[in-house]
Amino acid sequence: MKLRELAAALGAPFKGDPETEVASCSSMKNAVKGSLIYLEDEKLLGSAQKCGASAVIAPPGINAGLTVITAERPSLVFARAVSILHPQEKPAGKRHPSAAIDPTAKIGEGSDVGPFVSVGAGSVIGRGARLHAGAAIGQNVTVGDGCVIFPNAVVHSGSKIGDRTVIHAGCVIGGDGFRFVPDKNGAQVKFPHVGTVRIGSDVEIGANSCIDRAVLDETVIGDGVKIDNLVQIGHNCVIGNNTVIAGCAGISGSVRIGRNVVIGGQAGIRDHVTIGDNVMIAAKSGVVGDLEKPGVYAGLPAVPISEWRRQAAAISRGPETLKRLAKLEKRPTKPL
Amino acid sequence: MKLRELAAALGAPFKGDPETEVASCSSMKNAVKGSLIYLEDEKLLGSAQKCGASAVIAPPGINAGLTVITAERPSLVFARAVSILHPQEKPAGKRHPSAAIDPTAKIGEGSDVGPFVSVGAGSVIGRGARLHAGAAIGQNVTVGDGCVIFPNAVVHSGSKIGDRTVIHAGCVIGGDGFRFVPDKNGAQVKFPHVGTVRIGSDVEIGANSCIDRAVLDETVIGDGVKIDNLVQIGHNCVIGNNTVIAGCAGISGSVRIGRNVVIGGQAGIRDHVTIGDNVMIAAKSGVVGDLEKPGVYAGLPAVPISEWRRQAAAISRGPETLKRLAKLEKRPTKPL
Amino acid sequence: MKLRELAAALGAPFKGDPETEVASCSSMKNAVKGSLIYLEDEKLLGSAQKCGASAVIAPPGINAGLTVITAERPSLVFARAVSILHPQEKPAGKRHPSAAIDPTAKIGEGSDVGPFVSVGAGSVIGRGARLHAGAAIGQNVTVGDGCVIFPNAVVHSGSKIGDRTVIHAGCVIGGDGFRFVPDKNGAQVKFPHVGTVRIGSDVEIGANSCIDRAVLDETVIGDGVKIDNLVQIGHNCVIGNNTVIAGCAGISGSVRIGRNVVIGGQAGIRDHVTIGDNVMIAAKSGVVGDLEKPGVYAGLPAVPISEWRRQAAAISRGPETLKRLAKLEKRPTKPL
Repeated sequence: MKLRELAAALGAPFKGDPETEVASCSSMKNAVKGSLIYLEDEKLLGSAQKCGASAVIAPPGINAGLTVITAERPSLVFARAVSILHPQEKPAGKRHPSAAIDPTAKIGEGSDVGPFVSVGAGSVIGRGARLHAGAAIGQNVTVGDGCVIFPNAVVHSGSKIGDRTVIHAGCVIGGDGFRFVPDKNGAQVKFPHVGTVRIGSDVEIGANSCIDRAVLDETVIGDGVKIDNLVQIGHNCVIGNNTVIAGCAGISGSVRIGRNVVIGGQAGIRDHVTIGDNVMIAAKSGVVGDLEKPGVYAGLPAVPISEWRRQAAAISRGPETLKRLAKLEKRPTKPL
Repeated sequence: MKLRELAAALGAPFKGDPETEVASCSSMKNAVKGSLIYLEDEKLLGSAQKCGASAVIAPPGINAGLTVITAERPSLVFARAVSILHPQEKPAGKRHPSAAIDPTAKIGEGSDVGPFVSVGAGSVIGRGARLHAGAAIGQNVTVGDGCVIFPNAVVHSGSKIGDRTVIHAGCVIGGDGFRFVPDKNGAQVKFPHVGTVRIGSDVEIGANSCIDRAVLDETVIGDGVKIDNLVQIGHNCVIGNNTVIAGCAGISGSVRIGRNVVIGGQAGIRDHVTIGDNVMIAAKSGVVGDLEKPGVYAGLPAVPISEWRRQAAAISRGPETLKRLAKLEKRPTKPL
Repeated sequence: MKLRELAAALGAPFKGDPETEVASCSSMKNAVKGSLIYLEDEKLLGSAQKCGASAVIAPPGINAGLTVITAERPSLVFARAVSILHPQEKPAGKRHPSAAIDPTAKIGEGSDVGPFVSVGAGSVIGRGARLHAGAAIGQNVTVGDGCVIFPNAVVHSGSKIGDRTVIHAGCVIGGDGFRFVPDKNGAQVKFPHVGTVRIGSDVEIGANSCIDRAVLDETVIGDGVKIDNLVQIGHNCVIGNNTVIAGCAGISGSVRIGRNVVIGGQAGIRDHVTIGDNVMIAAKSGVVGDLEKPGVYAGLPAVPISEWRRQAAAISRGPETLKRLAKLEKRPTKPL
């Protein structure tokens, strides 16, 4: 691809020879002739100049002799360049003969169905979707257009998934939640889960993550939500649009999370908590109460991060505090 | 179903028109005519009265004009009502033609075997069980009557599972545990695992959870144990009856856990620790030593929760403590 | 097997009747006639003498009337004895007729392929490998000689795996990492992942663990690395040889970890952090900055463990500290 073609496709201005060949996106480390790299700011300008790349996506004002595609947000435009220069294989309406599609299920036009995929009775898969090897889709599931279900993911009966949503390998969508009621003998009686899961459009759910079905109603994952690997979302949760949840986080049941929330890795949220829009929760935090005001929270229990930083500083000074305290106690208590 | 029929099936008294039609269990939020809801106490009585449900399971003494099934423990009786009004599909002895059942394996009468299920040589599956799509059962596995193995779960060779146990999607039962012995060159030599896993009856194991086989003997999960999603149980653990383990908890190897223990989400337990009966461990706690006495524990390292609360209060007052200390240090040390 | 034969196979001296029959490795608890056990030191000598085992692997200087195979490191030699007395079934070049092997894929000589295994176009599997039921291997994957891929594991396209590496059930190797760039409307735009994963030889990766592909380059897992169950390894990580990572740990993206590092269970490491060779990180720690110097670290944020122990002691004395402080404040501030 020529620089001028790529720049046109990206809708971005460029400086340098329009006929420059741009073959692939690359890190600086592995850049060669034909590589396109990106620069967020001037810090790595020297490396960029020396790395051998043919072109760089950089913010306005940086050029220094390089062939540049200019972008206010280089990483965002680079992400789009990757899509253009490294196009994903598109679904082609192939169905592997081994797939077990119930006769009452419908697979939309142009969708690929891999080997050992099962789709249960009454399920409807949209157009241009990809169901990879071993994906197990239950009964009466709805999967929208352009979705990708990666290998060995499981979508339980009754789940509803919007368009262009990506379910990574090994995910379990719509399994029973964890609610048991002890009887008088101490045995745990299962609370049957007859609710469902509804996942919006443009969602991405990481490998081996689990989203439980609701007890009676719906567990809801809003549009544009991005969930990392090995995340647990309990029954009845409602998660607002564009919220981002990092790996190994655990969201208990009936948690309500707003829009554009960011939850760090290994964070945990107690059941029935409400998290407001635009809240950020630091990695490893434990949220035990509502966090309604936008801002960054950290700690166990999670508090505003400025408060947590003061607490953490006091903890690190704890040993010194004990010494200072002992010294004070040795002061004479009466006038000499 | 009529109210009188449902109440009879539940063995519970009722007040109101015995001919009231009860069609489904519902939350208050989504209740309509025909809905059955439940009330734990008087707090939500107003909502219950207004929600449009046809009947409510409520504790004695609450009625206020509603059609009521009376129960000391409404949620327990409601759970049973859900089972009655929303019966699960029962196994019907169907075997998908794609299933790969070793000729020496035995599948009990009335059990369903889904597509792409594999069952290895010498394995015995009980009666009325359900093996869902893609479940992989190794060799010489025993699965009891009425068990449910959800899609893509893996039960390794030699594992033994009791009756009515539910293994959720993506679980891995009986994989090798994590024990390596460094040799003199620093390479980690694998300790081969020739033990097994034995899981009791009425157990439920959440999606993508892992239970490792023992090194030499048995990893044991007692009857009635309930394990949430994404939980790790190390080799050689022995877990007592009716214990409950919440999501993302990690139990290291050779941990002994008593009966009726409750372990919170993301809690971790060090290897070789013993936990007594009726212990509760708060979410995110880290248990590094034995906890034999019944009670609630929290923190890292876990201590009795009253102690942990005092510690947490001191932590939250840490910044203030530093200020108070500095102020004290500025006091004159000698009489003026 | 006779004692003299086993000792010869282990290359270790023995004391006692060379014709003693040794049938199986066992714990002391379950030892019977014919059992081989091991003793790390004298502590359990009494139990060893009474347990009924026919022979014991013990360090030099311990015998006390037992039939002994002598070894400086008994557990290491016992691990090898387990391999000898309980040999794993070897691959025999069997291919289940249901397997979906792309015509352009190559399966090495003597490798077993289980039911419902899929191998994509251009992939190359080595000799003597075992692909268990439901394993899904993408396109252009390389798997070395003697590897074991357990049931329902997923190896995404382009991943490279060395020799004798074990991928446990449900693992996901080479899924997309978690990088999104918010656009001006707050929507999270996916950063396409065109990098790969390269896993060395003699690696073991636990059940349901996830290793993400790099954004542009390679995520690298060195030779001899051992990873437990439910571990998350983010994109672009580079992990040095013989490093050990315990269960439920979460390694964020672009983390560089040296050789012979040990990472405890549920530990978390922030993105872009560098961990030096021979570092040990305690369970549940949160690493937020580089740890280059060998040693043990603990806490959140992780600090040298001696410092963390002092901090932990101060935390546990926090309630007492508040009382002492209050008492000091009540002291007269002026001479009486």
